Amino acid sequence: MNTRETLKIGANGHLMIGGADCTELAAKYGTPLYVYDKKYIEDISAIYVKTLKEVYGEGRILYASKAFSCKGIYKLAEKCDLGADVVSGGELYTALSAQFPADRLVLHGNNKLDRELTYAVESDIGFIVCDAFDEIVRLGEICKSRNKVQNILLRVNPGVEAHTHHFVQTATPDSKFGFSFMNGDAMKAIRLALQTEGVNLRGLHCHIGSQIFEKESFSLAVRKMTDFYLRVKTELGYEFDTINLGGGFGIYYTDEDRKLSVEGYAEYIRAVGETLKSCVKEKNLKKPFLFLEPGRSIVGEAGITLYTAGSVKKIEGIKNYVAIDGGMFDNPRHALYGSKYTVVVANRMNDKPCEKYSVAGKCCESGDIIAEDCFLPEVHRGDILAVLSTGAYNYSMASNYNRNPVPPAILVENGKSDYLVKPQSYEDIVRNDADCKLI
Amino acid sequence: MNTRETLKIGANGHLMIGGADCTELAAKYGTPLYVYDKKYIEDISAIYVKTLKEVYGEGRILYASKAFSCKGIYKLAEKCDLGADVVSGGELYTALSAQFPADRLVLHGNNKLDRELTYAVESDIGFIVCDAFDEIVRLGEICKSRNKVQNILLRVNPGVEAHTHHFVQTATPDSKFGFSFMNGDAMKAIRLALQTEGVNLRGLHCHIGSQIFEKESFSLAVRKMTDFYLRVKTELGYEFDTINLGGGFGIYYTDEDRKLSVEGYAEYIRAVGETLKSCVKEKNLKKPFLFLEPGRSIVGEAGITLYTAGSVKKIEGIKNYVAIDGGMFDNPRHALYGSKYTVVVANRMNDKPCEKYSVAGKCCESGDIIAEDCFLPEVHRGDILAVLSTGAYNYSMASNYNRNPVPPAILVENGKSDYLVKPQSYEDIVRNDADCKLI
Repeated sequence: MNTRETLKIGANGHLMIGGADCTELAAKYGTPLYVYDKKYIEDISAIYVKTLKEVYGEGRILYASKAFSCKGIYKLAEKCDLGADVVSGGELYTALSAQFPADRLVLHGNNKLDRELTYAVESDIGFIVCDAFDEIVRLGEICKSRNKVQNILLRVNPGVEAHTHHFVQTATPDSKFGFSFMNGDAMKAIRLALQTEGVNLRGLHCHIGSQIFEKESFSLAVRKMTDFYLRVKTELGYEFDTINLGGGFGIYYTDEDRKLSVEGYAEYIRAVGETLKSCVKEKNLKKPFLFLEPGRSIVGEAGITLYTAGSVKKIEGIKNYVAIDGGMFDNPRHALYGSKYTVVVANRMNDKPCEKYSVAGKCCESGDIIAEDCFLPEVHRGDILAVLSTGAYNYSMASNYNRNPVPPAILVENGKSDYLVKPQSYEDIVRNDADCKLI
Repeated sequence: MNTRETLKIGANGHLMIGGADCTELAAKYGTPLYVYDKKYIEDISAIYVKTLKEVYGEGRILYASKAFSCKGIYKLAEKCDLGADVVSGGELYTALSAQFPADRLVLHGNNKLDRELTYAVESDIGFIVCDAFDEIVRLGEICKSRNKVQNILLRVNPGVEAHTHHFVQTATPDSKFGFSFMNGDAMKAIRLALQTEGVNLRGLHCHIGSQIFEKESFSLAVRKMTDFYLRVKTELGYEFDTINLGGGFGIYYTDEDRKLSVEGYAEYIRAVGETLKSCVKEKNLKKPFLFLEPGRSIVGEAGITLYTAGSVKKIEGIKNYVAIDGGMFDNPRHALYGSKYTVVVANRMNDKPCEKYSVAGKCCESGDIIAEDCFLPEVHRGDILAVLSTGAYNYSMASNYNRNPVPPAILVENGKSDYLVKPQSYEDIVRNDADCKLI
């Protein structure tokens, strides 16, 4: 199992997170339950902020909301001196509802709706990252009609191909995101933005993928980006003062992934910061303010999900299934991407694994499996299963499939716990069901 | 395009559904918008009910809630003389909230929670379909302590492999569902149920898959099931009086699928009913009450989703992207299963297709594509795109990924429309976000 410092085995053989006994959390809050370790989030945020400052200087770590968005996480991010990126009106609304400072927010998206752009502009958001020619024009009009000037970046596609699952590669020439360096679109978009009233073009943004373990991919992206900054300076006589190099640092899900300590993750920041510093110097560029967006790595390993084992079905010679009280409605990532997870029996951590199990959800669908081939001690109804590294993209992608309620999320620290997100009730699920006049 | 009778092209070249102009619906309700055609649901339900009665006699068509569950659909199902199956406490709650008669409900699930079993028993649900040895025992205890006797079926796995996408095959020996005929579990479970107080075993249930186009798969399943009924009669001297043969009839998504008229779908009912009747006669069995569960086919083609086209991105020599204001949060089926859809430009139905487009969602994720290689007229920002056959598993699997609101659903009939499900607000999304004491 993952042995990072905030997950421990207690004297009673129970899994502990943030000083809390997982079986007690399950008893207190019920299952399924998303559990987040406050200290992990604080520690990794602190070391990211510190490393960026030490290695590079002016910049900001942006928490990538899409990994996990709720009011509490923005409050925590703010205390950790992070900014945040948002990708929709809903994420912006959540951040602002948590009194997150608007000037530390960056709005992304390949297809921002007019109402989202307007909402962002009226909220005095720090930056909007434009992703289409007509978006630049529309944003300019929205700003002009409100007598505002909006800081923007342009999402570009530097053509760096990160070695990762194909679903999460984003900067290859074929992408719904960004203006390509290769086909002239990036330069065209820059010219357009520079002549568009209402927007103030401050620099470029790229994001080369997700779950990336090669620091070299990031360094290559930095070199390509600064080459382009130099080209813009030379060709247009215009110098950017900001750069956003996205995120995508790989995290630990199973032993197939590289396992890093909190300090290890900071190495990504160090690599990017150092490369940028030297590129800027070498090319004689103005040193830009640096945004980085390591969303998954901030919350991914900080979170686990607790389930109660239900039916155990052993099909002689074929497979053992253990069914949990959750499933693809709270963790669709295995069904979506074939994502792999580490599963442990939280109430018997010292028992020797002896059998392989497929962990099946309770949804009425054969594909509702959240982990395959988990080597576990013999599992019984009532055991508490913990699935590790579920802090990113699990709550955020949760659905009411089969009208199952979305599980609550709690934060733990020094053995104490409280809700980040309260349980959804059946009443919540039917809240918008209408009394249709046509029936 | 799909030319079923309820989808038409108006004189103005606009797509019409249930007598309503799709562009007017988009203007009135906004997009994304799930639209359901009442007449389609009524017609297909009526012909299912009629065919079952004519061909077989005693039985009931159960609407499979997981395809689309909201209060309105249960009200409509009730008026159409359907029963319904539910697979969770949430679906049961929704059905009961719509005053759906409990005795017409059947509860399924590979891992029903104790609270769900208790809720069902206390609601006097018609049938519970047991799916694990210990579930039979637990249910018996729940019933005994309440002085109730619950009608049950057992989910069995007759080993019929339907020709369909592997994710949705359910009756092969390796399945999280059901007691297998092959390894003796089915007979063991029957013996257990017969000696368990509090439950009244009435028969067996099987479900051989989804999106099945071969009537022969169903006929084979019927033969295997009745063989087993005969075996039980012979070996145990016990005769079942009920059978549930599930659903799984394939529907039309694209030209790759077989297209059937409403009457065509009734052929599945006819095939199953006739085979069952002749098997029962041939094996000299008591004619069982027949449940069938054609959920997807009742609502799948009845529903379409309307979107507004946003950014259009043409990558020379590679691909054209049109971005919509929805995406994997309202239709995760392409990302999950690679499901294919027919897409049309609803405001210009008579324009000739001239280019291929990938229809990209607005989520901050490269895999957020809902359809590939759609041959469309040149698409412009503001066009209304309709994605057909989205009535099943789209709303029901929708999430708040990227904190996008779940779109509303409306019902249309004779040009009139009203909400089935009202729009979700940002306030709804943050409703359960807690003020965490630890931050």
